[in-house]
Amino acid sequence: MRIAIDAMGGDNAPEATVEGALSAAAEWKDTDITLVGDLERIESVLNGRALPTNLSIRHASEMIDAQDEPVKAVRRKKDASMVVAGRMVREGEADAMISAGNTGALMTTGLLVVGRMEGIERPALAPMIPTIDDQGILALDLGANMDAKPEHLAQYALMGSLYRQKVHGVSSPRVGLLNVGTEAGKGNELTKLAYPLIEQLPVNFVGNVESRDVLTGNCDVLVCDGFAGNIMLKSLEGTAGAIFSLLKEQFTKSLKTKLAAALIMPELRSLKGKLDYKEHGGAPLLGLSGLVLKSHGSSDGVAVKNAVRQARTALQNRLVESISKEISRK
Amino acid sequence: MRIAIDAMGGDNAPEATVEGALSAAAEWKDTDITLVGDLERIESVLNGRALPTNLSIRHASEMIDAQDEPVKAVRRKKDASMVVAGRMVREGEADAMISAGNTGALMTTGLLVVGRMEGIERPALAPMIPTIDDQGILALDLGANMDAKPEHLAQYALMGSLYRQKVHGVSSPRVGLLNVGTEAGKGNELTKLAYPLIEQLPVNFVGNVESRDVLTGNCDVLVCDGFAGNIMLKSLEGTAGAIFSLLKEQFTKSLKTKLAAALIMPELRSLKGKLDYKEHGGAPLLGLSGLVLKSHGSSDGVAVKNAVRQARTALQNRLVESISKEISRK
Repeated sequence: MRIAIDAMGGDNAPEATVEGALSAAAEWKDTDITLVGDLERIESVLNGRALPTNLSIRHASEMIDAQDEPVKAVRRKKDASMVVAGRMVREGEADAMISAGNTGALMTTGLLVVGRMEGIERPALAPMIPTIDDQGILALDLGANMDAKPEHLAQYALMGSLYRQKVHGVSSPRVGLLNVGTEAGKGNELTKLAYPLIEQLPVNFVGNVESRDVLTGNCDVLVCDGFAGNIMLKSLEGTAGAIFSLLKEQFTKSLKTKLAAALIMPELRSLKGKLDYKEHGGAPLLGLSGLVLKSHGSSDGVAVKNAVRQARTALQNRLVESISKEISRK
Repeated sequence: MRIAIDAMGGDNAPEATVEGALSAAAEWKDTDITLVGDLERIESVLNGRALPTNLSIRHASEMIDAQDEPVKAVRRKKDASMVVAGRMVREGEADAMISAGNTGALMTTGLLVVGRMEGIERPALAPMIPTIDDQGILALDLGANMDAKPEHLAQYALMGSLYRQKVHGVSSPRVGLLNVGTEAGKGNELTKLAYPLIEQLPVNFVGNVESRDVLTGNCDVLVCDGFAGNIMLKSLEGTAGAIFSLLKEQFTKSLKTKLAAALIMPELRSLKGKLDYKEHGGAPLLGLSGLVLKSHGSSDGVAVKNAVRQARTALQNRLVESISKEISRK
């Protein structure tokens, strides 16, 4: 397996990407890893350490940063580390790429450089949303496609279901459609039309699910358009954040509450971690002709290594080929 | 002022509606209140108490319950308490109506019985969403209109702004558009087209707002289509609910955490109350030719009386006339 890592992507690059790559290369000898990025900066992080035989560096003279306008950046910066890694996937030099960089630019790289899978109209970004039962839900699309057609939602359902099977080993993933009520007739035009399409697919469709039940883990795959999904995810984050800051305020009110705080703090921290979607692994871009994983912007070395693990599992279980097979069958 | 109360609407009807009406009639002598509903059941709650001169009963032989299909129920049950109250508003026998009954049926009553205001395409349900600063945000539409056009969102902006001015005394309400990012170009087709329309209105438009910031009270009026608004509100409720149940679980884990729980419980309860949107007053249906207020299904007597107070303020400040004037000016 050959995995290209955008060495310059993410808040902690290239330190985190170099450390992650070193540790992944040490653990998985059957995996060839290429760090794509500024040679000088990568070597400065290596600081004289020798590269293992399964880790190499590909110099790329440019990089895309968080402020770059995605489409423009991908079109103009032909030698950006992210774009070069994408080109390696397209040209068969790598089986997968990982980047913790600009999400919009990575989706654009997926679309314009790696390329869409035949039969897929819209690739989707599919992060895991934390749930109380710690199982998590794969939600898609949470990318930059704000408006979706019913057919797109049906393809998301199929791709998400296959991902949970192939990468997470869930045998019959429960697929839910994000909606305003659980009854079949509920929703807006989009969800009303998508419902019967998803019903016909070879997936375990559990029907409409409400955003109020998402945290309790009422499905394994949550299908939504990018706008609604984004509203949901940000409400979740915002509410959790607001409650924890209110709790903090309450806890520091008096001596009595400060005492309570000291007693409960470890439990509160674990609860906060539980609901932090940043701690729940990288997000695949599904529907491309190759494997592309988005690692969090704040990824450290461990997160980068975990993304390599995720990519390995997806490659071993032939995720992209399975999706392609299902899509062409329709 | 003449206010009709659907005596049979809500989980605690007719006890709550009768008690609320009695207490409102006692406080506001200038207000004539009519309880619309089953005479026998209302009299049984009155239990021999005499009616004040400004409180009367209008018998209605039918009622609409929570399970009724809204449009069918309103069309067929011509003598339902809710429908009769709506007819009183349309025919000028009442200046406002209040109901804690079936929300969909009340919206249908508004549309089919009370009637739309001239120039308004879609009436909107506008509840208050709780915020950390206790000021709350009026969000609309949170009713049954799942798909909206840009023009509808613009009308929501205008109506919501006038409501907060006229009923809550906010001098220049900040109007925000629910979106996935704060920059002007963000969003789906709907919000991208609505943005320039709202910009042209005589309202204090603060641009796009993200669902993650809603709880911090980043605007006074939040404009959204019914689908996105619903997703947001239910995410908020669901997350708050999930966190409180996780907290409860953590607090009962050990003797140490139980002790902490005992110390912090009053603060936690107040926090929970703060985020309970049911405690934040009735929701107006805006864009009708008369004043219609939706009180919560779980309203008690105090909530019913508060809804009367809300209706009085709206009537005193000529809310409906102000909206009509602004809409016809366009």
